[in-house]
Amino acid sequence: MRLAMYSIGAGAARPGLVCGTRIHDLCARVPAAPATMPEILAALERLRPALQKLAGETAGGHALAEVTLHAPVPRPGKIMALGLNYKDHAAEANMALPEHQLWFAKMTTAVNDPYAPIQLPRASDKLDYEAELAIVIGRRARHVSRADAPAVIAGYCAANDVSVRDWQLRTSQFVLGKSFDTHCPFGPWIVTADEIPDVQALGIRCLVNGEVRQNSNTREMVFDCYSMIEHISQAMTLEPGDLILTGTPAGVGAVSKPARYLKAGDVVRVEIDGIGAIENRVEPEAR
Amino acid sequence: MRLAMYSIGAGAARPGLVCGTRIHDLCARVPAAPATMPEILAALERLRPALQKLAGETAGGHALAEVTLHAPVPRPGKIMALGLNYKDHAAEANMALPEHQLWFAKMTTAVNDPYAPIQLPRASDKLDYEAELAIVIGRRARHVSRADAPAVIAGYCAANDVSVRDWQLRTSQFVLGKSFDTHCPFGPWIVTADEIPDVQALGIRCLVNGEVRQNSNTREMVFDCYSMIEHISQAMTLEPGDLILTGTPAGVGAVSKPARYLKAGDVVRVEIDGIGAIENRVEPEAR
Repeated sequence: MRLAMYSIGAGAARPGLVCGTRIHDLCARVPAAPATMPEILAALERLRPALQKLAGETAGGHALAEVTLHAPVPRPGKIMALGLNYKDHAAEANMALPEHQLWFAKMTTAVNDPYAPIQLPRASDKLDYEAELAIVIGRRARHVSRADAPAVIAGYCAANDVSVRDWQLRTSQFVLGKSFDTHCPFGPWIVTADEIPDVQALGIRCLVNGEVRQNSNTREMVFDCYSMIEHISQAMTLEPGDLILTGTPAGVGAVSKPARYLKAGDVVRVEIDGIGAIENRVEPEAR
Repeated sequence: MRLAMYSIGAGAARPGLVCGTRIHDLCARVPAAPATMPEILAALERLRPALQKLAGETAGGHALAEVTLHAPVPRPGKIMALGLNYKDHAAEANMALPEHQLWFAKMTTAVNDPYAPIQLPRASDKLDYEAELAIVIGRRARHVSRADAPAVIAGYCAANDVSVRDWQLRTSQFVLGKSFDTHCPFGPWIVTADEIPDVQALGIRCLVNGEVRQNSNTREMVFDCYSMIEHISQAMTLEPGDLILTGTPAGVGAVSKPARYLKAGDVVRVEIDGIGAIENRVEPEAR
């Protein structure tokens, strides 16, 4: 199933269920559905029969082309992200494979819609893309074993871990350069985990103005999705709607020789097999 | 004025206004007061006359001793923290004064009440304290100049930037070791900025079992509070209820020779002149 946040015209964003090229109003069509996406994710098992029935309706609702899709979780409680997690990316960066999981964070004010503009900020012109698979958490949990990790995952999205390289690397800590406003677009919807037979076998690509810049597969990950959940949950409670970005493959702009940073007007597309694509145009931040 | 979140018995936490040794139900007593602390902070100028009137009432409400105080912002949108920001701490750690502001983050699931237990986690015994002044943001803003920074600050709290040193330093990124559950106690209330004549002249102390371990003054900061807001808001929008931890002075346990980590049963107190004190007992995480 594909769960989305969508709006029509100037209306408020609401949860929706995508069926082919149409989208249904989830709260209106599913009895006793909660009003927010984190609550829907937490109630997914209870709602599943009704959602599956609705997902079979290819008429009714609205055409996807008529609606605006928003970030499928409007305000995640946290966004944790893993660095250097693709073997091909570590190789291009001339970095040894990490011995320990290298976690950083993006602030939730960076959340952006799947097709909305990314800001080229006033503060830098070192703007870069990172195609990433995002895990969306569906259950409140701590100390999750690797074996139990599938039970806390609601689904997956495509994400762009947009990075301001000079701010990211000016000090030892990445968080400022990873947290500029608009720099965490994700979506276009949450594909529930049951629809992804093997999350470690998904093609993942980034295209800039149609040119393929990253082209890899989630099997290249150093640490797999379930290991990430096991590790991070030793420290912190995971909650419905939390996002985990799982690292980016080879091909980021900063590593090209010469570096190829994003500029105003560029269109960046992140595609993941079985999930979908997000596409964001780079626009200068308003002055 | 002192704004708090409090509960009575098993009741829900609600916003309160502290008057001497008593606390008033803010939403019940102030006409048209919003229901949540971030909204109250955003409306502070509008509410100020009514709040000031209520703050004069030393009778009514509840005795502070009868209520439980909670984190004055239950779920900040973000918690950003500055590293190596006291001259005395940089000296004891044998680190050069930082040329650039060294920002890291704590996840909001780490939020804890001002007098609740801190977890000694299963995953580590390298538990350490850091007394810090916390800025509470009162206004949504980006690109705030140093001169305009006072206008976005609602007030200040005492905070303990509890740190799991082995997890903090296992990789280059601090965030996991800074984000264990319960490791961001703050409070005991928000002292509004108008009551702090000079935020860069406040005594700040940490006591463990009554022994003074940190004893400094906010004038020792390398980067002052307003410069922090100017810098960070170049990247990200600040929102009402966001927390900024402003760094810790000399005397943390990890730097002692030999290192003196916190152990079960220890009581850690953070005091800041003109603000108040928080006090948290260390308890082993349940198994």
